Parts: sequence; C-alpha cells; structure tokens
Amino acid sequence: MRWVSGGVAAAHGFRASGIHAGIKRSRKPDLSLVMADGRCAAAGVFTLNRVLAAPVVISRQRLRAGAAQAVLINSGCANCLTGAAGSRDALALGRAVASALGLAEEDVLLGSTGMIGRRLPVATVLRRVPVLVQQLSRSHHEAAAQAILTTDLQVKEAAVEARVDGQPCRVGGMAKGAGMIAPSMATMLCVITTDAAVPLPLLRSLLRRAVERTFNRVSIDGDMSTNDTVFALASGLSGARVRPGTAAAARFEHMLEAVCDRLAHDIVRDGEGATKMMTVRVRGARSPREAQAAARQVAFSPLVKTMLAGSDPNPGRIAAAVGASPARFNPARLDIRIGGHRLVSRGVALSVDGAALRRLLSRPDVRVDIDLHAGTGEGLMRTCDLTAEYVRINAGYAT
Amino acid sequence: MRWVSGGVAAAHGFRASGIHAGIKRSRKPDLSLVMADGRCAAAGVFTLNRVLAAPVVISRQRLRAGAAQAVLINSGCANCLTGAAGSRDALALGRAVASALGLAEEDVLLGSTGMIGRRLPVATVLRRVPVLVQQLSRSHHEAAAQAILTTDLQVKEAAVEARVDGQPCRVGGMAKGAGMIAPSMATMLCVITTDAAVPLPLLRSLLRRAVERTFNRVSIDGDMSTNDTVFALASGLSGARVRPGTAAAARFEHMLEAVCDRLAHDIVRDGEGATKMMTVRVRGARSPREAQAAARQVAFSPLVKTMLAGSDPNPGRIAAAVGASPARFNPARLDIRIGGHRLVSRGVALSVDGAALRRLLSRPDVRVDIDLHAGTGEGLMRTCDLTAEYVRINAGYAT
Repeated sequence: MRWVSGGVAAAHGFRASGIHAGIKRSRKPDLSLVMADGRCAAAGVFTLNRVLAAPVVISRQRLRAGAAQAVLINSGCANCLTGAAGSRDALALGRAVASALGLAEEDVLLGSTGMIGRRLPVATVLRRVPVLVQQLSRSHHEAAAQAILTTDLQVKEAAVEARVDGQPCRVGGMAKGAGMIAPSMATMLCVITTDAAVPLPLLRSLLRRAVERTFNRVSIDGDMSTNDTVFALASGLSGARVRPGTAAAARFEHMLEAVCDRLAHDIVRDGEGATKMMTVRVRGARSPREAQAAARQVAFSPLVKTMLAGSDPNPGRIAAAVGASPARFNPARLDIRIGGHRLVSRGVALSVDGAALRRLLSRPDVRVDIDLHAGTGEGLMRTCDLTAEYVRINAGYAT
Repeated sequence: MRWVSGGVAAAHGFRASGIHAGIKRSRKPDLSLVMADGRCAAAGVFTLNRVLAAPVVISRQRLRAGAAQAVLINSGCANCLTGAAGSRDALALGRAVASALGLAEEDVLLGSTGMIGRRLPVATVLRRVPVLVQQLSRSHHEAAAQAILTTDLQVKEAAVEARVDGQPCRVGGMAKGAGMIAPSMATMLCVITTDAAVPLPLLRSLLRRAVERTFNRVSIDGDMSTNDTVFALASGLSGARVRPGTAAAARFEHMLEAVCDRLAHDIVRDGEGATKMMTVRVRGARSPREAQAAARQVAFSPLVKTMLAGSDPNPGRIAAAVGASPARFNPARLDIRIGGHRLVSRGVALSVDGAALRRLLSRPDVRVDIDLHAGTGEGLMRTCDLTAEYVRINAGYAT
C-alpha cells in the first residue's frame, strides 16, 4: 500500500470541484461537489445527536437505497434548527445540482457545516451551481476539500493505492474538523471514494468499523455536533472485486482504515487552538469497552488537556480522570507512563525529574500509556491540548 | 429561617482554627481544624472516583461508626497516589491531633486537598499541631475556612438559624472549590455542623439528599476529584430533636439544603477564571434523571461555556448539547430560552436582536431554560464560563 495524491478524486471515476457560492461572508470557498461517473454503492455514518441538521435527515433517508452518484456539501451554514424551511432549502439545492448533472435527485447526498440556526441563502447559491458543475475535474480535489472547511487551518486529504483482487485499486477522501463547533460552526464531515467494487452490506459494515476505530477515537472538545457525517462511495471502476471474508476484503479494509486514520489524525492536529497532540492508550482493562471509556475520560478532561497545553507534568490529573471513568480496576495496581517514562507505579506517584518530564510534554505528539492491570481490554484516543486560543476562538466573533 | 454569621462554628458546641503549618510554599494557611465539645453523630459523602486519596479511605472507614468529634483538613497536598506511606502520614497526623485534643484517634475525620502525588511534610506539620489546637475558638471559623482553600479566591462560609422542635437551632458550614483541580490541586471539601440532635440514619440520608440537590448540581470543569468529601456533624446541643417524618425534620432539611446550596453557589461563582455563572434548567423530560442528564450535558459543554465567556449568543450550541445527551425527546418540539427570551421554538431558531441577546449573556448570572416537551421531568445545573484565564491557571505553574 502506498500513499498517493488526488484526495477524494484519487480513485477512478470521481471528479470534484469547490467554489465560493455566497454563503461565507469571508468570500472563502463554501460549496463542494464530488461526482462519480456512474451510480455507486454508497454508505454513510451519521451523528448520534438527536438534534439533526436538514441534510443529515435527507441523506440518511436517501442512503437506505444504498446508492448515490454525487455529494454536495456547503460550509458556512449548518442548516440546523431551521425547521421545514431548512429542509426545503436543502432539497432545492440538491435538486438544482441533480438537474445540472442529469441525475435523479435521490442520487445526490447532502452535507452542511457552519453556524447553527441560520438559513442557507438559497437563491444566491443556486446562481452559482452552473459554475460548480462546470468546474468538476479530477484535478480539483483540493478545491473541493477547501470548500468544506470552517475554522480548519489546513486542508485534509488522504489517498492510498494497493493491489486488490489483482487490480490496482484506490481509496481516497477529504475531511473537515471534528468536535470543534467553532465560532458557532458545526462539525466533522468526510467523503471517502474508492474504485473497488464493494457490495453494499460489506461497504456499510466496513465503513462503520473504520469510523469506530478512527474518527470515533479522536476528540477536540468532546462536543457532539448536529451535522457529523461520513460518506463512502464505491465506483467499482478498478475492476477489483471485494467479497466478504476474502484477502481482498482484508486489504480493502486496511486501505479504508488507513485513509480514515490519516484524516482523523489531521483533524486532531488541526483542532481549534491546538499546539500539540496526545495519544492516550489504555490497556489491562476488563473489556475493550471499559478501556475505551477510560481513554475517553482522560482525553476529554479539561485538566489533562490544559496540562498538555502548559507542558506541566501532573500525572495525578490523569489518574483522577481514569478513576472517574466507568472502568473497574484496583487503584493500587494503576500504572501511568508519559512518553514512555513511568510516573505512577502500582498506584503510587514516582518522583521524577520535572525538567525532563516537561521536555516530554513539550513534544508535538505526547503519548500517555495507562495500564489498569485488570484484564486484557485495550483502548485508544487521540486528542489535542486545550489552549487560551481555543477559548478565544470560541468565545468571540460568532455574530 | 435567617442567615447568621459564624460559618462552621455557628452552631453550638463547635470551635475551629486554621493556621499555616508548612505545607504550602506560599506560607498561606494550610491546616484547618473543627472540634466539637462532645462526640457527634457524623455522616459523610465522598467522591465516586476509584482513585482515592488516603484521608478519604480513612474517613470513610471511620464514619462506619457514625460518630466523630473533630475534622482535620489540610490544603496544599492531596495525599493521593502516595500509597501505604501516604496512609501512614495521614494516620500519624490524625493521631497527633487526637492526642492533643484528648480524643480517640477514630473520632478525628481527615480531609486533604492540593497537589496529587506528593507526600505530606509530616514532621513539619506535627510541630504546628499544638498551635492549631491552641487556636481553637468559636470565633476562628473564618481562619478554618481560609486554611482549606487552594486556588479559591474567596472564603466560603454559610450558616442559618431557625426554630426547630421549639428550639433555636443552627446549621453552618465551610467549603472549598469544586470540580477545579487547579494548578494540580484537587478538589471540593465541605464541613457542615449543626446543634440539632439528628439520629444517624436520618443525618446520613438528609446529607446525601442535600448533596445530590446542591453540590452534585454544580460543575466548574466536569473533572471528578480524588478527594471530594462532605462531612456533617450534629452536636445536639440546641436541644432540638429531629425525628424522621416530623415537621422538625422538614425544617432541618430545609436549613441543611440552604447551607449546602449557598456554599455550592459560592463554589461556582469562584470557579477558576470564572467571570459569570449560568443556571441551566431543563423541564419536560421523560424523567428527572433524563432532565438532569440533559442539564449536565449543557453545563459541561466547552462550547456553551466559551459562548458564555464571550457573551456570544449561540443557541445552536445549547441545542447540540441537549441533543447529544441521553435525554429522549422530539427535536421538533425543543424550546430554548436565554434570560427568559425564547431563542428556539419548536426546534427552530428564531431570529433575534443580537445586541439584546448579547446584553442578556453579559449578566453575572445567566439563566438558560430548556423545555423538551416530552414529559414532566425537571433538572438543574449551575456552572460558570470557560475563560482563557481558566486555561492560564491550569496550564502553568504546577511545578
């Protein structure tokens, strides 16, 4: 498997475009389109929030059919808390794009990200649809990735190539920031494309599993958005056939997870105000579920995240977070390491050289290892530090 | 019922003292003692963290007997992650105080707050025990309240008087900040004293209920400490007898809850870096449990708390937090008000005057009302804003 360029249009049979369509006042790109040459097997994973944006409701409904040919995403407006009018807005926009592409309306998936509670300027956006469609090109993947961003500082693209079922096959994708409902912006969005031929039930289960292992293991601020969506479209144009239980399926799953993992990684690294990353590994839990719960509690703790921001070694905060989690363990057996250095051994804090520890915490990617010595369950979370810049970004400038 | 001065020594039969005993480098007061004239019915509520400080383990054990005569609390050191040595430290300190007071060792309850993972300087502290005991006085309640603080800016004391069972009766207490494991400091501590005669089982159940309704309904940063403790001691010296199911019991419960509520209020107001408070009320939930879960999710959300810090109106963040909670409701019926002004009606964001809303959010105590229209369950949480100052306090200066 090797990394390739091309992002969401790296796989055969996909084109993309991204333009400014009058939604963002900043005049930055805010409308993104991904188009397949033919109808694709399509799956999606959506936010578990009870309050759902209009495009989430529509796309979830459309994906019941298991097929789609295009994905239309806008940034700058979440189209959430907008009621029936918001649904009509989303439908009108999707219909216009479907019509311009010569597709059935139901074959266009929709996503939105941005301010919650505001309406889309539909009339303005509709006037830009012809340009959006005209710009479609295999080389415009980065423009598409740019147009889904809100407060992200970096474009997030990834693509891999490997031989699957004897054929060179690609999986690619683009994403925007997660858990970072920035100056009122909602959310994490991702589009994955592949030229493998993947039967729908398998595509659905592999996507769900990849999301569970990657996007669901990162956190910026622990908030869950109303718009989170991951789409996957499989064109089959590589000729690689991926059947359940085969080596090809294992290879494809590996590729899919690699792309999702890279995008998830980039999302954390680009967290609002973030200056560094932290990877929290928990082992020795009574179950994988308890291990994951403990890792989440540590990764969500404001005190752990501010400690990271200040490179201020304080394993007590990590112990307190683990102890507050649902994981069952004997605190007298708890071990904690930071950057490989043991700081808590059998429940007792060791005295360590503060300056050396401060250097460990100053690295761009800090690793925390926690062993509960209560079983064989393992879990992992990635998060970033909580800085004054995060507060500055989120406290101001929404209106 | 009227508010009186006297804090933890307002009730008859209690004296208090607070001194610097060499634990804090700042030379601020760090050792606090509350002493009753005779043995009291005593109850406690402790942190649910699995990682427990030595004094928590010892005090929980001692309270099985249901009686105590003194409470010794140090600040500046949490005595947690200190293993068997930490237990020996706590026991030695308690034993010295018991001996100086002429009490049985088991009648002294212990509490600690401060840096996790450091040992108490026992030899130094022991030399100061005679002064601590000598300083005991009914008028030294504020010194005692001062000596349990870590990063708190304000002393937290409260006391009320009312006629119970025909007798003038008092409930008083002192507390230190909660949910704010400050530059590595752990925790919320509280000591409640009363001169009512309350049978042990009733004292235990009323204390647990009062804590549930007050301290468990406030949050600074959502972190759960290893040292949280609330003690209640009832001397009975007022002659007021509080029997289960009587008017006296109802009156006493009201007094107890008033004192706890005031202290909990003061804890939020004095949250690290806090500039204002927010009260989140949820009603119309399918159960009180779901209402409380929804209120917690809103009160814990970094995005809601930064919105508050910036007086930056954004009801979408509140809706997203409620939707992410375990509460079940129909989002098309969701109503949200801030400061009495309806911002979300039947799941749709209303267009409101941004400047007026900004003024509402600029108040020192902002009220958020959420109606799920799914039942009759109600819940309430109090929290403070998340500011850059919180990050500054917690990111630095631990070492």
